[in-house]
Amino acid sequence: MKRSVKIFVLSFYLLSAFGFSAFASEPILIQEQGSFAVGGTTRTHEGTFSMNNFMSPEGQTAYGDHAYVFYQIPMDAKKFPIIFQHGGAQSKRTWETTPDGREGFQNIFLRRGFSVYLLDQPRRATAGASTEENTDNVLSHNPLFTDRMFYSLFRIGEWPEYYPGVQFDKKPGTLNQFMRQVTPDTGPFDIDVIVDALVHLLDKTGPSILITHSMGGTIGWHTPLRSDKVKAIVAYEPGGSPFIFPEGEAPEPIKTFFGPITPVTVPAEEFEKLTKMPIIIYYGDNIAENWTEDAGRDQWRGELAMARKFAETVNQHGGDASVVHLPEIGIKGNTHFIFSDLNNLEIADLLSKWLSEKGLD
Amino acid sequence: MKRSVKIFVLSFYLLSAFGFSAFASEPILIQEQGSFAVGGTTRTHEGTFSMNNFMSPEGQTAYGDHAYVFYQIPMDAKKFPIIFQHGGAQSKRTWETTPDGREGFQNIFLRRGFSVYLLDQPRRATAGASTEENTDNVLSHNPLFTDRMFYSLFRIGEWPEYYPGVQFDKKPGTLNQFMRQVTPDTGPFDIDVIVDALVHLLDKTGPSILITHSMGGTIGWHTPLRSDKVKAIVAYEPGGSPFIFPEGEAPEPIKTFFGPITPVTVPAEEFEKLTKMPIIIYYGDNIAENWTEDAGRDQWRGELAMARKFAETVNQHGGDASVVHLPEIGIKGNTHFIFSDLNNLEIADLLSKWLSEKGLD
Repeated sequence: MKRSVKIFVLSFYLLSAFGFSAFASEPILIQEQGSFAVGGTTRTHEGTFSMNNFMSPEGQTAYGDHAYVFYQIPMDAKKFPIIFQHGGAQSKRTWETTPDGREGFQNIFLRRGFSVYLLDQPRRATAGASTEENTDNVLSHNPLFTDRMFYSLFRIGEWPEYYPGVQFDKKPGTLNQFMRQVTPDTGPFDIDVIVDALVHLLDKTGPSILITHSMGGTIGWHTPLRSDKVKAIVAYEPGGSPFIFPEGEAPEPIKTFFGPITPVTVPAEEFEKLTKMPIIIYYGDNIAENWTEDAGRDQWRGELAMARKFAETVNQHGGDASVVHLPEIGIKGNTHFIFSDLNNLEIADLLSKWLSEKGLD
Repeated sequence: MKRSVKIFVLSFYLLSAFGFSAFASEPILIQEQGSFAVGGTTRTHEGTFSMNNFMSPEGQTAYGDHAYVFYQIPMDAKKFPIIFQHGGAQSKRTWETTPDGREGFQNIFLRRGFSVYLLDQPRRATAGASTEENTDNVLSHNPLFTDRMFYSLFRIGEWPEYYPGVQFDKKPGTLNQFMRQVTPDTGPFDIDVIVDALVHLLDKTGPSILITHSMGGTIGWHTPLRSDKVKAIVAYEPGGSPFIFPEGEAPEPIKTFFGPITPVTVPAEEFEKLTKMPIIIYYGDNIAENWTEDAGRDQWRGELAMARKFAETVNQHGGDASVVHLPEIGIKGNTHFIFSDLNNLEIADLLSKWLSEKGLD
C-alpha cells in the first residue's frame, strides 16, 4: 500500500517534470478530505424531558457555537496548512468557486500543495446552531434585503453601473451567484466564540497560516492572543470589525460617511503576540482618497487608514506587518473580494511570493 | 496537456491492476470540484434605497430560496452523477465524514467513480438566505434544544443507553460530533421551493441518481414529477414528510405514538412518473414491531409500514420499487443514519450492487 502510493506520487512528479503542472484542467490529488465540528458549547433547558412531549425544549440540551470545517489535504502537502476565515454575511463559500465559475483560493492553494481548512464560523451557515437566541440586526434578518448595500460596500460599482475596469465579471449570472453567497447570522456575532473555535482548530492542525477576509479581520488579530500556532496572518480587506492596539496607543476614531471606525485596545503584552509572526494586509481599488458620500468607497478609505496605523504600531513593537494597497503596485480594479476577482491568479501569485519570502511555502 | 492527463490516468490504472485500489488511505483523483447556487428567487422591499441609510431594507432586493451545491467529479467519472438530498435539521454535512471520523458516502462513492453533488436545501446551512420570513417551529428555533428528541428519533438508543449492538460508535466525542451536524431552518420548510432547486440542478447535471434521507424523502418523490432526469431514487429511511399516492388510492393514516402518518395524493398520471425509474428504500434496526411508547421506535414503525404501501402502489402501476428492512437480510443495529453507521461500507456495497443490477454503475 505505502509503496504503491510512493510509486504513484513519483509518476506524478515525473509528469510534472515534463512541464505539466498546476493547470486548472489537471486532476487534483487529494490524500484525505472530510469535515468536522470544532469548539462549541452546550446549554441545557430547565425542566424535565418527557417522551410524551419530545418536541418541547424541557430538559433537552442544545449543542452550538462550534465552527464547521471542511478540509482537504493534497498528496505530499506542504508543512503549514492554510486556515480560511470568511467575513460578514459569508461562509466558507467565499473561498470556493468564484461567482463567474473559475477556481477560487480553495482549489488554487490546494493545487499549490497546501492543506486547506475552510471554516464556517460559529452561528453561520453549516455551523448554524447557537446556544444563544439570535439578535436582531441587519445581517440576521431574513430576508436579507441587502443587495444595494453590498454592491456599494463590496465596491462593485455605483449601482447599477460597474466601476470602469472593475475585476468583476459583468455577465448577469455572475452578480446573481455573488449575491447568493450571502447567508444570515443565526445567532449573536461574538468574537470570543469564534476565536475559541479557531484556537481549538489550531490545536488540531498545528502551526498554520491564517487567511482572513473583511469582518474576519478581527478574528485574525485576536486568535494569536490565545494560540501560539498562527504562523502568519494574511488579511484581505480587514474592516467592519475593529483593529486592535496596545492600551494607551490607540489612534482617534476615523470618521467616515457611514460612521466612525473605532479601534479597541488590549494590554501591551497581549498585543505583542502579534509581533511573533509576519502579517500582510491587502486592499483593492476604488477606495476613496477623500471623504465621499458613497458609503462603500468611504468606509474602506477609513479602514485602509486604520490598517496603516495598525501595521505601523505592530512594527514599532518589533513586528513585521505590511499593508499593500494594490493600485499602488499597479494592480487595478479589485473589489472587496480580491481573492475571487477576475485577476485572482495574479493575487494568489502575490501571496505565494510573500509566503515564500517568509519561508512558509 | 491532454496527453499528460491520459498517461497519468493510465499509470493510475496500472497501479490499480496490481491490486491497489479504493483504499481509504489512497489518494482521490479529482478532475474538477467547486460550488454554486442553483434555483432561487428574489424579493424586492418597497420604498427607495438611500445611500444615507444603506442598512435599511427600503428599495433593496433579497436573494434567497436557492440550494447551495458542492460537487466533485473524479477522473474518468461514471455516466450518472449522484445527487445527495439531506434530511430535517441536517445539511450536506450528513454525507461527509462520519461522526466517528471515518469516510462517509461523499468519499466512498467518489472513490467508486461517481461524480457527487452534495446540496444544502434552500433555507438551510450555506443556503440560508430566504425570501420569506422564518416560521416558528421546533427546527427553526435557535438554540435547538433537541438532543433527547433526536436520540430517540434517530434510534441511537434509550437515553442515556445505546441499543445493544447499535452501529454507532460509543466514544463520547462521536455523539458530540453527531449532535453538531444539526443546523436550524432559516426560513419556512417549503417542498416546492426545494424541488424547484433540484429540478434546476438536474438541468445542470443531466440524468442522475438521487439519494435522499429522512425528511428529504418527499423531495425525492416530488422531483421526478417535474424533471425527467431522475434515473433512480435511493431513499434512506424516508419519513417525517409525506409519501405520495395516486388520488383515490391513498391508504388510511397510520397512527403512531407521536401522531398519525398521513400520505398526500397527486393525480394518477403524475404519480406514474415514479414508475419510470427504479426506486429502493432502506430502513435500519430497532424499529418497533407493535405500538410502543418510545416515540422514535414507534415513528419508524409507521413510516416503514407506509413505505411498504407506497412501494406496492408504485409496482401496481408498473414501476420497480422495493423496500429493504435491513435486519430482515441479516444486517443489524443500524440507526436512522444508515449511511454513516459503523457498517457504512457494507451499506455502500449493498447500494453498489443494486446500482449495478439496474445498469447504473
